[in-house]
Amino acid sequence: MKLCSLDRGGRDGRLAVVSRDLTICQTVDGIAPTLQSALDEWARCEPRLREVAAALENAHARHAEPFDPRSCLAPLPRAFQWADGSSYLSHVRLARQARGASAPDDLETVPLMYQGGSDDLLPNHAEIAADPAWGADFEAELAVILDDVPAAIGEADAASRIHLLTLVNDVSLRALVPAELARGFGFFQSKPASSFAPVAVTPDELGPAWQSCRVHLQMRVDLNGRPFGRVDAGPTMHFSFARLIAHAARTRRLAAGTIIGSGTVSAPQADLASSLVDNGGSGCCCLLERRLLETVHAGAARTPLMRPGDQVRIEMLDGDGASIFGAIDNRYVAPIEASAQEGGAPHAPR
Amino acid sequence: MKLCSLDRGGRDGRLAVVSRDLTICQTVDGIAPTLQSALDEWARCEPRLREVAAALENAHARHAEPFDPRSCLAPLPRAFQWADGSSYLSHVRLARQARGASAPDDLETVPLMYQGGSDDLLPNHAEIAADPAWGADFEAELAVILDDVPAAIGEADAASRIHLLTLVNDVSLRALVPAELARGFGFFQSKPASSFAPVAVTPDELGPAWQSCRVHLQMRVDLNGRPFGRVDAGPTMHFSFARLIAHAARTRRLAAGTIIGSGTVSAPQADLASSLVDNGGSGCCCLLERRLLETVHAGAARTPLMRPGDQVRIEMLDGDGASIFGAIDNRYVAPIEASAQEGGAPHAPR
Repeated sequence: MKLCSLDRGGRDGRLAVVSRDLTICQTVDGIAPTLQSALDEWARCEPRLREVAAALENAHARHAEPFDPRSCLAPLPRAFQWADGSSYLSHVRLARQARGASAPDDLETVPLMYQGGSDDLLPNHAEIAADPAWGADFEAELAVILDDVPAAIGEADAASRIHLLTLVNDVSLRALVPAELARGFGFFQSKPASSFAPVAVTPDELGPAWQSCRVHLQMRVDLNGRPFGRVDAGPTMHFSFARLIAHAARTRRLAAGTIIGSGTVSAPQADLASSLVDNGGSGCCCLLERRLLETVHAGAARTPLMRPGDQVRIEMLDGDGASIFGAIDNRYVAPIEASAQEGGAPHAPR
Repeated sequence: MKLCSLDRGGRDGRLAVVSRDLTICQTVDGIAPTLQSALDEWARCEPRLREVAAALENAHARHAEPFDPRSCLAPLPRAFQWADGSSYLSHVRLARQARGASAPDDLETVPLMYQGGSDDLLPNHAEIAADPAWGADFEAELAVILDDVPAAIGEADAASRIHLLTLVNDVSLRALVPAELARGFGFFQSKPASSFAPVAVTPDELGPAWQSCRVHLQMRVDLNGRPFGRVDAGPTMHFSFARLIAHAARTRRLAAGTIIGSGTVSAPQADLASSLVDNGGSGCCCLLERRLLETVHAGAARTPLMRPGDQVRIEMLDGDGASIFGAIDNRYVAPIEASAQEGGAPHAPR
């Protein structure tokens, strides 16, 4: 089953079921007006939503309409939780190397995860407003959307709490990261709003590609219309989504609608030339990795971070070459107003 | 105007207007079913909610009922954003000292802020389930609840985006903090769900105590029925709420219903004896500060962190001694099931 939130009335959009081939959809007000409301009562809603999905496949849906990804918001346009793991260790190692930080000793045994902002999850076609001085980047990731999860859930039980999967461009402002992380409280200004694929799908839509709570399909990233990343998201995902959920829930329960990200999809690269998609390599799913490979193997970073007008497209295809989630397609632009510089004295207390 | 969310049907509770003296309340389904829905359309809802508030004060409310804080959820039982600042620098300095970390050079010019989990905001009377090995603590804080805030808002404009204030017990698991922060991604497991006062109030309810976007009233903390903290939250709040909002919005807009915390209310202490409330001192708003004062001035921490059965009460009174927000009253308990230890090998990738 595939679901989307149409941009019709209200901050949370209007839930619709989408056909497998992403050509038609049908709103389902009588079942659940929004995706969050469906997740709040998934046991009641899921069978009825699946009936609509079956009707769409069999051309029996009476109120189907053409599906247009540009009429979609993010599947959850605002969510109660967005927590992003770092399951692809080659990304973690390169990102730490890039800012001169060492990788934690327990990198391979305990997941890294940060709490992200979830009040503003952007549509697939959103423009990303970022001051060029902030060093904007993209990060192509998978994400799962959960049912209620009890505290201290085990990894074995966590898989059943995954109701939906989707894609994320986890926008990162590289120039702001080192200073922010050095202050000890994690990302905040360096992780602005992220953009989501138009469609979220139940795990069964992935068929045999969904295995051990990992997605064994290629993450496809195009930069300004040219292939930039073609990385299989399965084999190098060190911590499964079930393991990430168990980590997130170690000291607290998670509410329905929680979104957990995989971290930037990544695979180790032997050298720069063989990593390039044009040379048959798998490439990268963010600019930071490419720039660090250039630094290590060619002496200096040549690929610039995102400039106003640059465009990234992120997509995943099934075995038949059909888009599973629809594409993320973000153009980066300058903010209308430059952000105020920080650092002045605060107002004096009374 | 004072608002609460009654625990009646639904995860978001049912919005009610509460009388100034916290004795009666009235639900307002015809205006807005939940507090989030009121914040989503504040300009439309606020005048109508204020009419109900006026009717309650004038004993003209036709459907008033007795107000019971134990029938309340958190004002926002789940929110789209919870971001917590650290505006009381004496707390930051002590907390850093406690874990052997230095305070950042720009401590006095740029606020520290972390992104917290907002999917599960606990009621005022919640039991806090924490394994004793986690070193559970309380942190008494003020918080503001916002309208939509545009990106890059200036400090001067930010004040007008504050619609409501309330109190928070920002539960912290001290034993998990150092290792988590050392990994570089900020708090996650060490900051489980927090508990909120039953009532949120508009700034005008504070009268002259609301000045320069600070609350010039005493934060009152009782531990196991004895006074533990009596700290004026105004003069030592280095960064105002307006400054915290401008910091949070530097690179992104904030959605209506965003909650921004002040950080643990704190005042510098000359020594241990004079800091104690029993000796006429202002005391502390978390156990960590008391323990560090003991370490510095008496050689060792004597006050234990929260053990199962310990109880903390957090409240703020107006000039007439009346409770403004109602009290937070949390008993700490052991979790029903011990949390699984982390550190085992993840499932092998395919």
